[in-house]
Amino acid sequence: MRSDLESKKTAGLTRRQLLGTGAVAGATLTLTGMVNAAPREMPESWDEEVDVVVIGTGFAGLAAAYEATKAGASVALLEKMRTPGGNSIINGGVISAAGSPEQAEQGIEDGPDAMYSDMLKAGLGLNHPQLARKVAEESAAIVQWTIDELGVAYRGMVHMGGHAVPRSYATAAGSGSGIVIPQLEKLAELGIEPRTGTLLKHLIRDEDGRVKGVEVQVGYRFPDADSGDPVKIKARRAVVLATGGFGNDVDYRMMQDPRLTGELDTTNHPGATSEALREAMNIGGSLIQPSWIQLGPWTSPDERGFGLAPHFVQGVAAAYGLWIETTTGQRFVNEMADRKTRADAIIAAGNKVIAFCDAGGFEKAKTAPGAKLDRLMESGVLKEYASLEEMAAAYEVPLDALQETIATFNASVAAGEDSEMGRYMQADQFAIENAPYYAVRLLPKIHHTMGGIAINTEAQALDVTNSEPIPGLYVAGEAAGGVHGASRLGSCAIADCLVFGRIAGRNAAAEESWD
Amino acid sequence: MRSDLESKKTAGLTRRQLLGTGAVAGATLTLTGMVNAAPREMPESWDEEVDVVVIGTGFAGLAAAYEATKAGASVALLEKMRTPGGNSIINGGVISAAGSPEQAEQGIEDGPDAMYSDMLKAGLGLNHPQLARKVAEESAAIVQWTIDELGVAYRGMVHMGGHAVPRSYATAAGSGSGIVIPQLEKLAELGIEPRTGTLLKHLIRDEDGRVKGVEVQVGYRFPDADSGDPVKIKARRAVVLATGGFGNDVDYRMMQDPRLTGELDTTNHPGATSEALREAMNIGGSLIQPSWIQLGPWTSPDERGFGLAPHFVQGVAAAYGLWIETTTGQRFVNEMADRKTRADAIIAAGNKVIAFCDAGGFEKAKTAPGAKLDRLMESGVLKEYASLEEMAAAYEVPLDALQETIATFNASVAAGEDSEMGRYMQADQFAIENAPYYAVRLLPKIHHTMGGIAINTEAQALDVTNSEPIPGLYVAGEAAGGVHGASRLGSCAIADCLVFGRIAGRNAAAEESWD
Repeated sequence: MRSDLESKKTAGLTRRQLLGTGAVAGATLTLTGMVNAAPREMPESWDEEVDVVVIGTGFAGLAAAYEATKAGASVALLEKMRTPGGNSIINGGVISAAGSPEQAEQGIEDGPDAMYSDMLKAGLGLNHPQLARKVAEESAAIVQWTIDELGVAYRGMVHMGGHAVPRSYATAAGSGSGIVIPQLEKLAELGIEPRTGTLLKHLIRDEDGRVKGVEVQVGYRFPDADSGDPVKIKARRAVVLATGGFGNDVDYRMMQDPRLTGELDTTNHPGATSEALREAMNIGGSLIQPSWIQLGPWTSPDERGFGLAPHFVQGVAAAYGLWIETTTGQRFVNEMADRKTRADAIIAAGNKVIAFCDAGGFEKAKTAPGAKLDRLMESGVLKEYASLEEMAAAYEVPLDALQETIATFNASVAAGEDSEMGRYMQADQFAIENAPYYAVRLLPKIHHTMGGIAINTEAQALDVTNSEPIPGLYVAGEAAGGVHGASRLGSCAIADCLVFGRIAGRNAAAEESWD
Repeated sequence: MRSDLESKKTAGLTRRQLLGTGAVAGATLTLTGMVNAAPREMPESWDEEVDVVVIGTGFAGLAAAYEATKAGASVALLEKMRTPGGNSIINGGVISAAGSPEQAEQGIEDGPDAMYSDMLKAGLGLNHPQLARKVAEESAAIVQWTIDELGVAYRGMVHMGGHAVPRSYATAAGSGSGIVIPQLEKLAELGIEPRTGTLLKHLIRDEDGRVKGVEVQVGYRFPDADSGDPVKIKARRAVVLATGGFGNDVDYRMMQDPRLTGELDTTNHPGATSEALREAMNIGGSLIQPSWIQLGPWTSPDERGFGLAPHFVQGVAAAYGLWIETTTGQRFVNEMADRKTRADAIIAAGNKVIAFCDAGGFEKAKTAPGAKLDRLMESGVLKEYASLEEMAAAYEVPLDALQETIATFNASVAAGEDSEMGRYMQADQFAIENAPYYAVRLLPKIHHTMGGIAINTEAQALDVTNSEPIPGLYVAGEAAGGVHGASRLGSCAIADCLVFGRIAGRNAAAEESWD
């Protein structure tokens, strides 16, 4: 695999996982009264005609629009928000590739089977096997495609929690914008610009069962349901739904999991709401696994949204420091485990948990690109303590228990194996012993909704009545369900979105026109 | 509470939980091609008109038909199978009542809050709070109603796994038939007979959003999708959907949880398939929490379906004996824990698990009504071993570990408290020490689907587009979602079905006629 990797050292890069982006969405919004259940009839006339309508401008929607356009289809690319990119543009920008040349160079044995196995382990076996396998099988090729076709720059391979081996690539940009912006640029070269402020109101499904167009509100101002003017767009070949998840929709997520109240924060952008998913179900799309909603384990209660904490928490405190329960002073989870394991463990500990490192860890953090330590310290999310005693006092941690925890871990470091939690031991792991100490409080936040519309490996939406494809409707990305089962393995979202987004775009363009 | 309880002793009754019924459904069937996604139009004419159409003849459907008829509505009561009763008639026949006079007499403090708390604990907090609370609050009154109104006979109060205190009543009949048959009789007195062999094909929802009738196949022979003749029935007031769960629908359950393949057995009757649920979604019903599917922990791989093993396993081996992992010879779960805890533990042990008791336990089993020990022994599901050594050899259990496990438990018996697993200790618990020994192999089977159509406390179905009630459509029983969250607490199904079935029937009859 050719690449723009700046570095091929693995161990030194693990701290670069999950870089924060600053773009944060805290507000939770309810969109009711936007849709109605009355049967839709085919309109007498259309305001516009294209071959393919793509709804959503995250990784999946942009990939679909690109492939459809390249295949010769005319494309309308719709986005309800004022700016394109959805959750994708603020995501961590890390993508898995199983069996890459870089891995081979570093002597890391890997391949789709191993990645598939890790995905199913994180997903508790609830993944739809053929969908998860497709992502694993296409992962190395899709990263290569981002390099060759989009010109995406990566800064190195990283080791994400829950993966058996290092197999993930971090964008040089430090976030999903490193992929979304090249996608937008390539589309602009083809003459396709996202139509922002355009809300999907209705999918129009004809009596013959085929989806033939959409009714949208042009000039929509999120979240004002009544804003904008209705426009009907005929889709001669197909509609691609790439409208993302519903992590920021309190009412809908509470229907599927009543524990996830508005009190909880989310890493999602404000537009991660349910109305497009509801409309897809309303015209016969089959909903699967909606009550599996992932919480990210690396976020802090001391800032809103994704924030800046995850970089320090995952890349430094999880890789070189420790996560401890403040009431006991003890470790409570493998700090490099998958997201669900860690988030569940934090919640089980009553959210009384800190992630910390010593001066050695802080040195690591300083040299990591995109660390933004100054801003983390300034905002008070990351705190410095002159001594272990001072840190223990600040969080009311029993000091003797904390000292014992550190001693046990340091013995593991000397032995080269984590006797307590079986954590992957960094090649350059050091004993935790030098003041000052640095700590972040942890609180899981809603991150990804695993459920969505059922699809097959051709990204065709499946009908709720008979599980057969709905003619003219494709779904890709977080709006589709089944790829990730109970819990998505970190760094598998971008591969999922790009693989199925491209498939959806190609297949949509290849449909015969019904007109 | 007046009642027909034969006994008011609690401890002696715990073995009577979850009596098997013999009626077993092993076949798994796929019903595709039965429905289509084309929009429905109002028919030009109807073949028949009633006030209320009730679909399904389990606890919920029968309760709805009864209340609607008593309220003066004309009712069509439809059942797709050849005989009425669905899963209800073969269910264990145990129903919870929190805060009953019997509990007060026995000095057991209890009430709706405690039952609600147990339901949410078993449900992992995913229960819709207002639905679970409704069942808990109405539970004592609903048991009293079965006695006063239906003349149901109970044989005593039992202590079900996952309940903090004994609060469940076992029918004298030993199964749900003890309630279903009186329900059918009371309906017959009112002139209502279930129309068997009548399959729901379509719910007819008008452009104004109201459900106004059904299209059915009369003369349907399960599972032949093409059998029978189409008949359209107008529902002037409302339709009540009480069509049960989808535990016996391999394709649909695998969409929601791919682990639940056709290799797994189920306690459900063959008609527990998804087509009515799919049709409810097709006309706009909102699906919630479908991937939570409960496995019963007390079933055996050596017989089909619910079988006879659960009586021995729950009432004798869990209450007086032990459940052990055969590879280690150790206990692995509190044998009286909730269903999910126990089923998950058995699966985690690779299904290499037996439930056993000694001669003392077998004596208990002999005196328990409905034990059917002869049939269990004859069929080879329950096996007798002349010595502990012989039993250990039969399942390749390490003998010394098994002996240590028993010694530890016997010490707990002497101390009056289970030091290992915190199991509720029976008042007449004895040391396990006397040959012969009796054992059953355990294998969890699919038992209850927690997910279904979202409803409110008035049993109104909620629309997927806006979570508002769908005019003219009520859902009750296993077809509705949310009451039980991630996992249903044992003995809460009948209360759920009767409470919401009665509400649905009363409300359906009280709707204004649209005609």
